[in-house]
Amino acid sequence: MEIKKEVQALYPQMILWRRDFHKHAEVSWTEFRTTSIIADHLEKLGYEITMGQDIHVAADRMGMPSEQFLEDNYQKALEQGAIEKYLPRMRGGFTGVIATLNCGAGPVTTLRFDIDALYVNETDHVDHRPQQEGFKSLNSHASHACAHDGHAAIGMAVAQLLMNYKSQLRGNIRIIFQAAEEGVRGAKSLVSKGLLADVDYLLGMHLISGKPLNYMAGGRSDFLATTKFDATFVGAPSHAGGSPERGKNALVAAATAVLNLYAIPRHSGGATRINIGQLDAGTGRNVIAPQADLAIETRGVTTELNDYMYQKAVQILQKSADMYECKLAVKEVGAAKSGFSDLSLVNTIVKIAQKHAIFEEIVPEPDNSLGSEDFTYMMEAVQNRGGKVSYIDIGADLGGWAHHTANFDFAEEAMPLAVELMIQMVLALNH
Amino acid sequence: MEIKKEVQALYPQMILWRRDFHKHAEVSWTEFRTTSIIADHLEKLGYEITMGQDIHVAADRMGMPSEQFLEDNYQKALEQGAIEKYLPRMRGGFTGVIATLNCGAGPVTTLRFDIDALYVNETDHVDHRPQQEGFKSLNSHASHACAHDGHAAIGMAVAQLLMNYKSQLRGNIRIIFQAAEEGVRGAKSLVSKGLLADVDYLLGMHLISGKPLNYMAGGRSDFLATTKFDATFVGAPSHAGGSPERGKNALVAAATAVLNLYAIPRHSGGATRINIGQLDAGTGRNVIAPQADLAIETRGVTTELNDYMYQKAVQILQKSADMYECKLAVKEVGAAKSGFSDLSLVNTIVKIAQKHAIFEEIVPEPDNSLGSEDFTYMMEAVQNRGGKVSYIDIGADLGGWAHHTANFDFAEEAMPLAVELMIQMVLALNH
Amino acid sequence: MEIKKEVQALYPQMILWRRDFHKHAEVSWTEFRTTSIIADHLEKLGYEITMGQDIHVAADRMGMPSEQFLEDNYQKALEQGAIEKYLPRMRGGFTGVIATLNCGAGPVTTLRFDIDALYVNETDHVDHRPQQEGFKSLNSHASHACAHDGHAAIGMAVAQLLMNYKSQLRGNIRIIFQAAEEGVRGAKSLVSKGLLADVDYLLGMHLISGKPLNYMAGGRSDFLATTKFDATFVGAPSHAGGSPERGKNALVAAATAVLNLYAIPRHSGGATRINIGQLDAGTGRNVIAPQADLAIETRGVTTELNDYMYQKAVQILQKSADMYECKLAVKEVGAAKSGFSDLSLVNTIVKIAQKHAIFEEIVPEPDNSLGSEDFTYMMEAVQNRGGKVSYIDIGADLGGWAHHTANFDFAEEAMPLAVELMIQMVLALNH
Amino acid sequence: MEIKKEVQALYPQMILWRRDFHKHAEVSWTEFRTTSIIADHLEKLGYEITMGQDIHVAADRMGMPSEQFLEDNYQKALEQGAIEKYLPRMRGGFTGVIATLNCGAGPVTTLRFDIDALYVNETDHVDHRPQQEGFKSLNSHASHACAHDGHAAIGMAVAQLLMNYKSQLRGNIRIIFQAAEEGVRGAKSLVSKGLLADVDYLLGMHLISGKPLNYMAGGRSDFLATTKFDATFVGAPSHAGGSPERGKNALVAAATAVLNLYAIPRHSGGATRINIGQLDAGTGRNVIAPQADLAIETRGVTTELNDYMYQKAVQILQKSADMYECKLAVKEVGAAKSGFSDLSLVNTIVKIAQKHAIFEEIVPEPDNSLGSEDFTYMMEAVQNRGGKVSYIDIGADLGGWAHHTANFDFAEEAMPLAVELMIQMVLALNH
Repeated sequence: MEIKKEVQALYPQMILWRRDFHKHAEVSWTEFRTTSIIADHLEKLGYEITMGQDIHVAADRMGMPSEQFLEDNYQKALEQGAIEKYLPRMRGGFTGVIATLNCGAGPVTTLRFDIDALYVNETDHVDHRPQQEGFKSLNSHASHACAHDGHAAIGMAVAQLLMNYKSQLRGNIRIIFQAAEEGVRGAKSLVSKGLLADVDYLLGMHLISGKPLNYMAGGRSDFLATTKFDATFVGAPSHAGGSPERGKNALVAAATAVLNLYAIPRHSGGATRINIGQLDAGTGRNVIAPQADLAIETRGVTTELNDYMYQKAVQILQKSADMYECKLAVKEVGAAKSGFSDLSLVNTIVKIAQKHAIFEEIVPEPDNSLGSEDFTYMMEAVQNRGGKVSYIDIGADLGGWAHHTANFDFAEEAMPLAVELMIQMVLALNH
Repeated sequence: MEIKKEVQALYPQMILWRRDFHKHAEVSWTEFRTTSIIADHLEKLGYEITMGQDIHVAADRMGMPSEQFLEDNYQKALEQGAIEKYLPRMRGGFTGVIATLNCGAGPVTTLRFDIDALYVNETDHVDHRPQQEGFKSLNSHASHACAHDGHAAIGMAVAQLLMNYKSQLRGNIRIIFQAAEEGVRGAKSLVSKGLLADVDYLLGMHLISGKPLNYMAGGRSDFLATTKFDATFVGAPSHAGGSPERGKNALVAAATAVLNLYAIPRHSGGATRINIGQLDAGTGRNVIAPQADLAIETRGVTTELNDYMYQKAVQILQKSADMYECKLAVKEVGAAKSGFSDLSLVNTIVKIAQKHAIFEEIVPEPDNSLGSEDFTYMMEAVQNRGGKVSYIDIGADLGGWAHHTANFDFAEEAMPLAVELMIQMVLALNH
Repeated sequence: MEIKKEVQALYPQMILWRRDFHKHAEVSWTEFRTTSIIADHLEKLGYEITMGQDIHVAADRMGMPSEQFLEDNYQKALEQGAIEKYLPRMRGGFTGVIATLNCGAGPVTTLRFDIDALYVNETDHVDHRPQQEGFKSLNSHASHACAHDGHAAIGMAVAQLLMNYKSQLRGNIRIIFQAAEEGVRGAKSLVSKGLLADVDYLLGMHLISGKPLNYMAGGRSDFLATTKFDATFVGAPSHAGGSPERGKNALVAAATAVLNLYAIPRHSGGATRINIGQLDAGTGRNVIAPQADLAIETRGVTTELNDYMYQKAVQILQKSADMYECKLAVKEVGAAKSGFSDLSLVNTIVKIAQKHAIFEEIVPEPDNSLGSEDFTYMMEAVQNRGGKVSYIDIGADLGGWAHHTANFDFAEEAMPLAVELMIQMVLALNH
Repeated sequence: MEIKKEVQALYPQMILWRRDFHKHAEVSWTEFRTTSIIADHLEKLGYEITMGQDIHVAADRMGMPSEQFLEDNYQKALEQGAIEKYLPRMRGGFTGVIATLNCGAGPVTTLRFDIDALYVNETDHVDHRPQQEGFKSLNSHASHACAHDGHAAIGMAVAQLLMNYKSQLRGNIRIIFQAAEEGVRGAKSLVSKGLLADVDYLLGMHLISGKPLNYMAGGRSDFLATTKFDATFVGAPSHAGGSPERGKNALVAAATAVLNLYAIPRHSGGATRINIGQLDAGTGRNVIAPQADLAIETRGVTTELNDYMYQKAVQILQKSADMYECKLAVKEVGAAKSGFSDLSLVNTIVKIAQKHAIFEEIVPEPDNSLGSEDFTYMMEAVQNRGGKVSYIDIGADLGGWAHHTANFDFAEEAMPLAVELMIQMVLALNH
C-alpha cells in the first residue's frame, strides 16, 4: 500500500500541474512553456534530459505551422512564465522532452505521454469546470480538449515517484513527453532520430471520455492508419466575362478532384475513409479562380489500405490538375500507421492492474474506437526489433463530452490511477 | 472658346479633387467621406442636394457589406476628414448624392458619375504615379483602380461651371453622384426610388484605359446583362473517420454544383457566361464539411440570356443541395441589364464633340468590350418612358494598365475634355 | 454403407442429367425445358408436385425478361425436347417446381436447389470439358457457369433415393427446384406465396469452385444484402448545334448521378458497395441525349446497410434527373437480404458429415466470400417463425475457374457427396 | 425561254430519278446503287467519268462503317438493281462519281451535289407522300431525310441539259456527285486527291425545308466548323462486390469526362458547341465497367474556335482516362471547316437569278442557320488558290418538317428551278 499512498499524496500537485498546462494551452509544435516546466521538473528530480534538435530529425517533423506562428507563440510562452533557460533549444518548433534514468543492465522500458493542445476555442459555459474554477485556456486559439494536460501531469508524477524506487530498478527507464500528437505529426521525427531503436517495452496511454472512472483496457489494437495532406492547385486567373478561355480554372479542377476522391472504390480488404475537410478557392467573383487549397485525409484499417487510398487520391488530384493545366502541390502534414498491442504485454498489464486492485473494471481490449494515433510509429519501430508494446485506455469520463469539443473535460481522479499503474508496470518490467 | 478656357482654369482643382479621393479611397456603400465632400461642394455652389434615405429604397441596395464594416468605415471617414454634418444621413450605407438645378420649364437632363473605389490593394511600385506623388490610397483594402475618382472630379467641375450658364438654361439639370457601381450594386435602389422617372436625357460616361487621350465614342450599346449572387450550402458536420454517413456534406454538394454550373448549355440566342469565382467550404480536415459558400456571376448579351443562365444556375444549386440534404440560400448581390445607347442622342454627342473640336478621334460606337454596368438600370427606366440615353467612352490610357488591377492609373488630361463635353451637351439639350 | 452404395450407383445418371441441363442451358425465368424434365422425374417417383402460378405471386417475380424473350425461349424449349404437358403452366415465366413427400406428423424440412443458367457465352476452348465431351451449351446466350446444372441433378438424385427411405421418415419433406436465382430474382415470389410459412428446417447448398473436392462448410452467414435496379432518365432531344438550350440532357444527368453514386459515404456500420455496371445513353452524335439507362446494384453486409445505400442512390438519381429536368424511373429487378445460418443446425450438419465420413475437410463456416443469394429471403421467412436454416458449401473446384466466367466447370464427383449429405440430413431431421 | 422549256420537259424524269433514289436509300459510303445509276447516265451522255480509288485518298475517307456493313450493302445494291459494271471500283466504300466536260481553254467550273441518305427510319404515316405514292425507302435503316435524292436528280438533269450547250462553252466543267456528306465525312478525301486543285469557280447548293418554293439565297457564309469523333475508354473488369478495387472503371472515367467536356469554357472569340451524343458503357450490373464508348462533336463559328474545343476535349478525355488508369483511343470520324461564299460570285448568282426570273424571292445571304457542311473543305481548297466559291440555298419546304426527321419531304417543284439556275450559271461563267 506504500505506492498507493505516495500517489495519493502527490495528487494535489498533479491537479496543479494539469490545470496550469490547461490554462496555458499550447498547440502542436508550440509547447514551449509546457516543455520548459516539464524539463525543469525532470532535471530537478535528477533525470538526464534530452530535447530540441537532439530528439528530432528536423525534416521529419510533420505539419509545421508557419515561422511567424512559431515565433509568436515562443514570445507568448515567455510572457506566460516559461522557464527561460530551456527555450532556445526549442526555438523553431523543437518541442517535447525525454527523461532517462539509467539503472544498469536490464531492459529498456519507455513510457510515452503526449502534451499538446488542440485548435479548439474552449467554451466559457458556466457549467464548464475550467471556467468555474478559473483555469480555462488564456489562449483563445488553443485548448486541452483531449486530456493531454492530464497526460503530462501523469508523466511528471510517474517520474517523481519512480525516483523513490530507483534502487529496486535495473535497466533503462525512458519517459517521452511528446509534442504534436494532434494531427498525428510529432512521433515520426523521434523515431527517425533513432530514439526507439533499443526499446524492449513501450507503453502509451490515454484518458478516455467515453468510459467511466475506474475502467482500464490493457491494450488497444484498432488504430486506423491515416495520412493527412494538403493539396494546392495553381492555375491562372482571367476575366470571367472578357476572356474565360484564357484562365486555368483551379476551382473547377478542385471540384472535379473532390467528386472523384469520394468515389475511390471501396476495398475488399477492409474499411477505408477519405475526407476533403476544407476547400478554399478563388480570388474574386468575376475572375477565373487561379488557386484552390484542399485539406484532405485518408484512413484505412491497415497501413496498406491507407496507402491504397492515398495513392489513388494523389493520382486523382494530379489528373484533375492536368485536366485544367494547373500545377499541383501535395504536402503530407501528418501520418499514422495501423498497429496492435502485444498480447503478452497486455496480459501483464491486466494482471498487474488486478493484483494491485487499481481499477474496478479491467478488460484486455477496448470495445470502442479511437481513430488514429502517431504512437503507432513508435509501436512499429519497437515491434520491428522484437520489443513489446501496449497502448492503455483509462476511463475518465466527465459529463459525457466528446474529445475535441469545446466542452470537453475529464475526471481528474483518473490521474493517480494511471500513475499507480505505470509505476507498478515499471517495477514489474525492470525489477 | 470661353468654355474651354474656364475648363482649363479649373483643371488644377480637378486634379486636387481627384487625388484627394484617390488617397482616401472608399469601397461601395462606404463612400462617406467622398460623398460629404461632393455634397458640400454642390451645396456651396447653390444646388439643391438630395441624399441618404431620400435617394435609396433601402431593400433594393444590393451587395451590402456587414454592419460592422459599414460602421468601421464610417468612423474612418470621420478620422480622414469627412465633413461631419453630412454623415448621419449616410450611416448604414446610404451613400451618394444628387444635385438638382431647376431652370424652369424644359427637358429633364441627368448626368451620372460613379464615385466608389474597388477592393484592390494598390501597388507601391516606384513607377506608379500615386506612389511617386504621394496620393496612393491610405486604405489598404481599397483603391480607385477604375477611375471613379476621376468621374467624381469631372462631375464636381461640371457642376461648378454649369452654374456660370444657369441663365442660358431651361428645364431641369440633375447630377447623380452614384455609390456602389462596382459589383453593379448601387443603381437599382435609385431607380426604385423613382429618381429616373421623369428624365428626358440621360448621359453616363467612363474614362477608358484601353483608348488614348483625345478619343471619344458617343454611345456604348454592348452592355452584358449580369447577376452577381452568393450561394450558401448548409449541411451537417460529422467525424469523417467515425461516422461519415451521418454528415451532410456541403463541400461535395458544392463541387457537384460547380461542375454542372459550368456545364449549363450554351444558348443559340447569343453569348452567355458563368463563373464561380470563389468557393470556401469546411471547418476541419477530419470533419464532413457542414457549409460551403460560393460567389457566382452569370452574364448574357441580353437580359433574357442572363435570366436563362441565372435560372438554370439556381436550379442546379438547389438540386445539388437536395442531393446531399443540405439547405441552400441564394442571395442576389448585384445585377445589371443589357442596354443600348439611342442613336439620335449618340449622333448629337458626336456632332457636339466635332463642332467644338473637343477630341481628335471621334467615333459613334466603341469597338472594344466593357462588360457590365448598373447604369443599364437607369437606361431602361429612361427609355421605357421615351427618354433618350447614351453612355460615352473617353480615352485616358496611361501605361496600358487594365482597369481593376493594382497598377491602374489614368491620364488626368482626359478630365477637362470630359467636362467640356458634358457642359456643351447640357447647353445643347437645355438651351 | 447402404446409402453410399446407392448414391454411387446413381452417379452415372446424375452426370447424364447434369450434362443434359448444361447442353440446354436456360436463363432465369426461361427454365421451361429444365423444369419439365425435373417435374416429370418427380411425378414418376411419386411426389406431389406444385408449379406455375401455384408457386409464384406473379407481381413479386423480379427482373422479368421481355414477353418476347420469354415466348421465344418457350418455343425453343419445345424444340429442344421439353416434356410438353408441363409447359402451359409455366408460360409467361412461371418456372421452377416443388416436390412434396408427406410422411405424417413431424417436422417440415425443405431442401432448395436452384436450376437456372447465366447470360454467359460459354467458351469453346479445347481444354473446356463441355467442349471436349460435347455438352457445351447449344444456346449461345446462356450457359451453366454457376453449377446450377449440378444442383438440379443433385436435387433429382436426392428425390429419387429418399423414396427408398420413405417408411423411415415422418413429417413433411419439400424439395424446391427454384428458378431465377441469378440476379437474385426468383426466391421472393415463392416466399410471398407462403411456401416457407410452415418450415422447421431449411437447407440450401452450393457447389463451390474456390474449394477442393471433399471440402464442406456447414453453414454460411456472410451473405451480402443487395438490391439490383434499373434507372431510366428521360429528357428531351434537341439539335446540339442549333438549339442546345432546348434539350433536356439525360446523358449529363446520368453522368452526374454516376459520380455522386460512387461517392455515397462509406458507412461506419460496415462494408457497403455500389456499382453502375451499365450506362447506355443517347441517340445520335449531334442530338442532346434524350434518354439514359443505367443498371445498378447496391450491397451491404446487413440489410440495413444495403437499404442505406439504396435510399441514398435513389435520392442522388432523382436529384440528378431534376437538375436537368428529366423524368426518372427506377425499377427494382432483384434483391437479397443479409442472412445467417443457425449454429445448432450447422453443428448437426458437421456431426452428420463427420459421422458418415462424407467429406475429408469439414469446417463449420467458410472462410471465403460468396456474395449475395436470394436464398436469404427464404432464410428470413423460416427464422422469423422459429425455424432453423443453413446454407452448405461443397467444394468442387475444377481448374480454378471462377464462377460466372466463360470457362467455368466443376468437379462432378462432388455431386454424390452432396446427395449423401442431404439424405443423411433428412434422415436425421425427420426420422 | 429555251432553257426554261428544256428544264420543264425534263422535270418528270427528275421526279423518277429522285424517287428511285429515295426508294433505294443508301447511307454514307454505301451509295453503290445510286452511284452506278448516276455514272451510267453520265457516261451515256458522253461525259468522262472518274470514280473509285481515282477520286479518293483511301485513308482520308472519314467515318467508314465496318467492312461487314459495307459488304452487306454492296450485296444489297446488287439485289436492288445496281448497274453491275460500275460496282467493283466502289467495293470497300469508294463511292461517288465525277463527270468532266472538257471545252478547251477557259475557267474550271465545278458543281457539287451530295447523294447519300441518312440513318433515319422513314415514317409510314399516311400523310407522308413517299408512303402514299410508294417510294418510301425499302431499306429500313436508311432514308433520304435531307433531300440529297433531289440533289442527285438535279445534278443528273444539269449534266444532261448542259450537253445541249456544249458548243457555247469553253473551259472545263466538272460535276461532283459526292458520297458521305452526312456526318461531314466524304469531302476530305476528294480534296486530298487534288480534285479541287485547279478550280476557278465552285458552286454547291441545298434544297432547304425552312424556306418556301421560289426562294433563293445566293451564298451562305455561316458554316460552323466541326469535328466528329469517337472516344473509347478501356479499363479492366472486376467483380463489383468481391474486389471493386481491382477494376479500372471506364464508366466513371467517361462520366467524369462528360461533365468536364460540357464545362469547357465559353470562348470570347465567338460561339462554340460540344455534345456527347452517345455513351455506351459496361458489360454487366455486377462488374466494374471495363469499356465506355462515346460519340462526340465539337463546333465553332471559326475553324480556330472548333480547334480550341477539340483540343480541350481531347485533353479532358485523356486526363479522365488517366485518372482511372484506362487506355483512351480517340478517332476522328468527320470534320468540316468554317467557310464563306465570295461576295463577287454571290452577286453574279443573284443577278443571273433575277435576270432570268428563276425565283420570286432572291436574297444574297440566308437569314437562318444551316450548321456544318463538308463542302467547306472544297471551299477552302478553291479559295486558297484564288478561286471563287458559293453555296446556294433553294427553298423547297413541304409541310414544315425539319431536315433529318422521319417525316421530312421536300417540294419537288424546286428541282427544275435549281437546274435552271445551275445551267445559267455555267453559261455565264464558261461562255
